[in-house]
Amino acid sequence: MEEEIRTLYWQDNSVVMIDQRALPMAEVTLTCTDYRQVITAIKDLTVRGAPAIGVAAALGIALGSLKIEVATPEAFREDFAEICKGFAAARPTARNLFWSIERMERCFAAALRSLENLTSKRNRSGGSSTAELSGMGPRRAGPEKAESDPWRSVREALVAEAIRISAEDMAINRQLGAHGAALVLDGASVLTHCNAGALATAGYGTALGVLRAAREAGKQFHVYVDETRPVLQGARLTAWELTREKIPCTLITDSMAGFLMQQNKIDLVITGADRIAANGDTANKIGTYSLAVLARSHQIPFYVAAPCSTIDPSFPDGKAIPIEERSPLEVTGCGDMRTAPEGISVYNPAFDITPHHWITAIVTESGIVRPPYRFFS
Amino acid sequence: MEEEIRTLYWQDNSVVMIDQRALPMAEVTLTCTDYRQVITAIKDLTVRGAPAIGVAAALGIALGSLKIEVATPEAFREDFAEICKGFAAARPTARNLFWSIERMERCFAAALRSLENLTSKRNRSGGSSTAELSGMGPRRAGPEKAESDPWRSVREALVAEAIRISAEDMAINRQLGAHGAALVLDGASVLTHCNAGALATAGYGTALGVLRAAREAGKQFHVYVDETRPVLQGARLTAWELTREKIPCTLITDSMAGFLMQQNKIDLVITGADRIAANGDTANKIGTYSLAVLARSHQIPFYVAAPCSTIDPSFPDGKAIPIEERSPLEVTGCGDMRTAPEGISVYNPAFDITPHHWITAIVTESGIVRPPYRFFS
Repeated sequence: MEEEIRTLYWQDNSVVMIDQRALPMAEVTLTCTDYRQVITAIKDLTVRGAPAIGVAAALGIALGSLKIEVATPEAFREDFAEICKGFAAARPTARNLFWSIERMERCFAAALRSLENLTSKRNRSGGSSTAELSGMGPRRAGPEKAESDPWRSVREALVAEAIRISAEDMAINRQLGAHGAALVLDGASVLTHCNAGALATAGYGTALGVLRAAREAGKQFHVYVDETRPVLQGARLTAWELTREKIPCTLITDSMAGFLMQQNKIDLVITGADRIAANGDTANKIGTYSLAVLARSHQIPFYVAAPCSTIDPSFPDGKAIPIEERSPLEVTGCGDMRTAPEGISVYNPAFDITPHHWITAIVTESGIVRPPYRFFS
Repeated sequence: MEEEIRTLYWQDNSVVMIDQRALPMAEVTLTCTDYRQVITAIKDLTVRGAPAIGVAAALGIALGSLKIEVATPEAFREDFAEICKGFAAARPTARNLFWSIERMERCFAAALRSLENLTSKRNRSGGSSTAELSGMGPRRAGPEKAESDPWRSVREALVAEAIRISAEDMAINRQLGAHGAALVLDGASVLTHCNAGALATAGYGTALGVLRAAREAGKQFHVYVDETRPVLQGARLTAWELTREKIPCTLITDSMAGFLMQQNKIDLVITGADRIAANGDTANKIGTYSLAVLARSHQIPFYVAAPCSTIDPSFPDGKAIPIEERSPLEVTGCGDMRTAPEGISVYNPAFDITPHHWITAIVTESGIVRPPYRFFS
């Protein structure tokens, strides 16, 4: 059995991640020592997948906090907000990114409040103020300076929270998988789209987590993998994960899914999600909507697997979920190879919205939810 | 206005064709002086598209006949049959290939019969026999040897028939286009898949012929072009044809079509066909079936445009139409670039079958045919 995939993690005050752009031809890791590298990694798809983006943001914010060199809590708040703003602007669709930022913001607020309370207590008992504590002026933060770092407790809280978010993500996926495994009958033929695997999360995966759990439960099944143009997350990442774990699979182009369904070669479809509205409408990788419509036309169940952190209570339905449009170059070529004529106009939405009525069930760590979906009501 | 696209044609006892594998990055022509080169060109997609494959076979068979060096009609028949067999084995799905071969076979039979009748008349009036005429043994055929070539009339008939098939194809497409133009309303947004353009025919195109005719009728419309993985005939060929003629178009991946329909951005879908059964079931490029199902789900008309030579009376329905499976390498990579892990299993059907009940109308040179389709009954 291959070693478990570690998509991204905290190590020696840096964020280490698999460079998913290089897969499957090369297994390369990227070590980010500056939070801006993590933002870039999210933008350029070095790390992708809603839960993984959330974890990357948490780790990246923690990383950013290590280098804030300011004298006052106000300035610390400002710099921290700036870092969070940078992550919030990295990609628009994945709910987990914002969920993670919000959690890091709450952690920061609490840790800073604690520090301020402690300082004001000390002041009342004759100690110096936070501002005075840090009055020696900007310094390079880091563990080696920890002894003289007035913000140490805040930074440590943020690092701990980010590591916790990452560990929770892994645990949540195992729970989610355990629930979802019941949906995969022995001998089933499964279709999946894009990559909702270990690589889309801190590890184990959501849709592929369900398949991993089904396999751990002793079930035999076959997976058809949509290549998922334009970025080919299916061909490059899902195919890599499944072959690595010797789960039987077959690669197809996105346009073949309907034909397979027509031939009764698909028993169920399962995908991940980037954002789920309160009514169950689901944003996921472009092409998901077509699969859901095709699945319904062929009376095939269509499942979405995602942690509760993907569900966004602020959207009553999917209509207003922001859909990222990415570079035309993703469509006019394949890797570095240009395949379309120069000057061609391109439409490249990275996601689409599948209305809740096409979704047979949503698998979360809390269990399998079936329609009518009424999240947060 | 750009010069008309000449996909393939007869010139100086050779078959000249655009090398479609090189498009859109390079405009290269291939000159075939041996019929085996034409067979290879069909197999490796240098020339593709059902009507173009038919024309290529006709021209290729004529080319092959020029080099047959035999002494007796029996031997000529054998060698000719061998050439036809080679073309019949080139690709299995396109009806036009077999239609064209059958037509060349009929032409050959008639021409050889004429020659034999003529010879036997001469014999009765004291002339030498055909066998004797060619009794000098094998020779290099060609126009320079025409005077001493006993098979000259047969070869000339075959070349004339092939050129006629090519010219007819062009004329048929213009007729087909004129009928179909009525389906494209002014201001329409059209989706097309693969390439059913000038490049898929001797010229002008079928589905794109309808669009060319609509444009010649003064209509304004916009075309969404599916890239059409794995071979990218949409991105490489249709996008090239449309941009060349300044027909407004936008390139998308195959997986985006459903999302566009959901957004009411598609008014009609039109594709070509590789083989149409007597009941209207249609084999066409993989992904066509999915589009037809999606179009019906969104109440969007789905049209097929094809010459009558694509209709195959020997298939009552689409069930038994042979579906070519092509190399896994088309799916595991893009051009020369590998994108999927080594050793991955691949399913690569080049076509699918769209049942007649999903097809709103079939546009042929004889007019627009609507259900129930009863071809040849």
